[in-house]
Amino acid sequence: MNREEFLREGERIDDLQRCGYGLIQDPSVFCFGMDAVLLSGFARVKKNEKALDLGCGNGIIPILLEAKTAGSHFTGLEIQPQAADMARRSVAMNGLGERISIVTGDIREADRLFAPASFDVVTSNPPYMTNAHGLKNPSQALAIARHEILCSLEDVVRQAARMLRPMGRFYLVHRPFRLAEIFRQMMNYKLEPKRLRLVYPYADREPNMVLIEGVKGGRPRITVDRPLIVYEKPGVYTPEIHDIYGY
Amino acid sequence: MNREEFLREGERIDDLQRCGYGLIQDPSVFCFGMDAVLLSGFARVKKNEKALDLGCGNGIIPILLEAKTAGSHFTGLEIQPQAADMARRSVAMNGLGERISIVTGDIREADRLFAPASFDVVTSNPPYMTNAHGLKNPSQALAIARHEILCSLEDVVRQAARMLRPMGRFYLVHRPFRLAEIFRQMMNYKLEPKRLRLVYPYADREPNMVLIEGVKGGRPRITVDRPLIVYEKPGVYTPEIHDIYGY
Repeated sequence: MNREEFLREGERIDDLQRCGYGLIQDPSVFCFGMDAVLLSGFARVKKNEKALDLGCGNGIIPILLEAKTAGSHFTGLEIQPQAADMARRSVAMNGLGERISIVTGDIREADRLFAPASFDVVTSNPPYMTNAHGLKNPSQALAIARHEILCSLEDVVRQAARMLRPMGRFYLVHRPFRLAEIFRQMMNYKLEPKRLRLVYPYADREPNMVLIEGVKGGRPRITVDRPLIVYEKPGVYTPEIHDIYGY
Repeated sequence: MNREEFLREGERIDDLQRCGYGLIQDPSVFCFGMDAVLLSGFARVKKNEKALDLGCGNGIIPILLEAKTAGSHFTGLEIQPQAADMARRSVAMNGLGERISIVTGDIREADRLFAPASFDVVTSNPPYMTNAHGLKNPSQALAIARHEILCSLEDVVRQAARMLRPMGRFYLVHRPFRLAEIFRQMMNYKLEPKRLRLVYPYADREPNMVLIEGVKGGRPRITVDRPLIVYEKPGVYTPEIHDIYGY
């Protein structure tokens, strides 16, 4: 089957620069950003481990983790049928049907969809904005991806904690302005923050993303990584960013 | 009175590079480190505000804040009589007796020594190590300054919260590995983390200090500052560090 046969109107295929994989995207629904790529570089999925992505959108994180790690199986949970459908077609287009499952469903009901403590790793690139922050997006699909309309930070953390086995690992990408709240929610649900990396657009600017690793039932002590700098100068990525993107 | 007349055996006077001030130090008791200097650059004390330093040691932070800010009065609380005595002599030597008070006493009893909510700003450069972390120092005075022997992080945060007026500001320097616990304690005592700055020895290394500002009763939302890099290359400070040190 030709790649273009997987496409619907308005969609395009982006090259993921990994294993020859492509990703079906529709800008009117959602396109993945650097956050998802950085999360896929920050998360560690070890040999034979099973990973769950909460709110997988068009499937970018499960597909990148399949390409980059030795994990055995990847599940993406997505509430929006159109995004879940795109993710499933991307999985099929890349021939990954036995390694990646896309489930249409609500993060808040993850514990009814999956067995408790059944994953080694949970990842999430959730909506960043509360209802109080920023303008609502006029497109409903984009708004759901960006604002906490259908799930809150606490919902994501609570369900991640339920899905993880003891000492399982939670990986989150978020915005720095919510760092204290993220730590509070994680500690409330016994996902001890163990690693933090701040992403700075330039070496002399404020960070605009945080990458956080939590361990279910882990002991208190966090490692803060060296800074991840995105640009050497305008339009020129640092070598580390090139490495994470794979080109 | 000649400066040397303020000295006891084994002590020396270090030039603070601010307002001609000197500081009496005794290496067998404790010498201030870069942490105290960076905290004095991070803390904001506005015109006519009153500031309290919890665990002031030889008085470095009240003296630097007096030199750098427009605050009207500075109090240092120190449990070790020898350090408090040195701090008092440094205050007298610099002619600051009307602007800085050094009180000998226990951080855990701050709320019996001072009126509640009577300070605009509280600073602290507390012991970093719990009893579980690192080797105890063979010198008792150094051990008390470095390990949570006489006060815990929670004691410092609890007393800071009691001493601050509503919307008063708490400034803490600490180690990154305790960041999550620091946030948890602060939020437990309604000192909302509002600003975080990570101090990296070099631009490509893990941070070794954190500077945190909390606001009593503040609303959740934290700003993470641009990184503070200490060295351009071995032995050469960055311009920002030179600026903080004042030379």
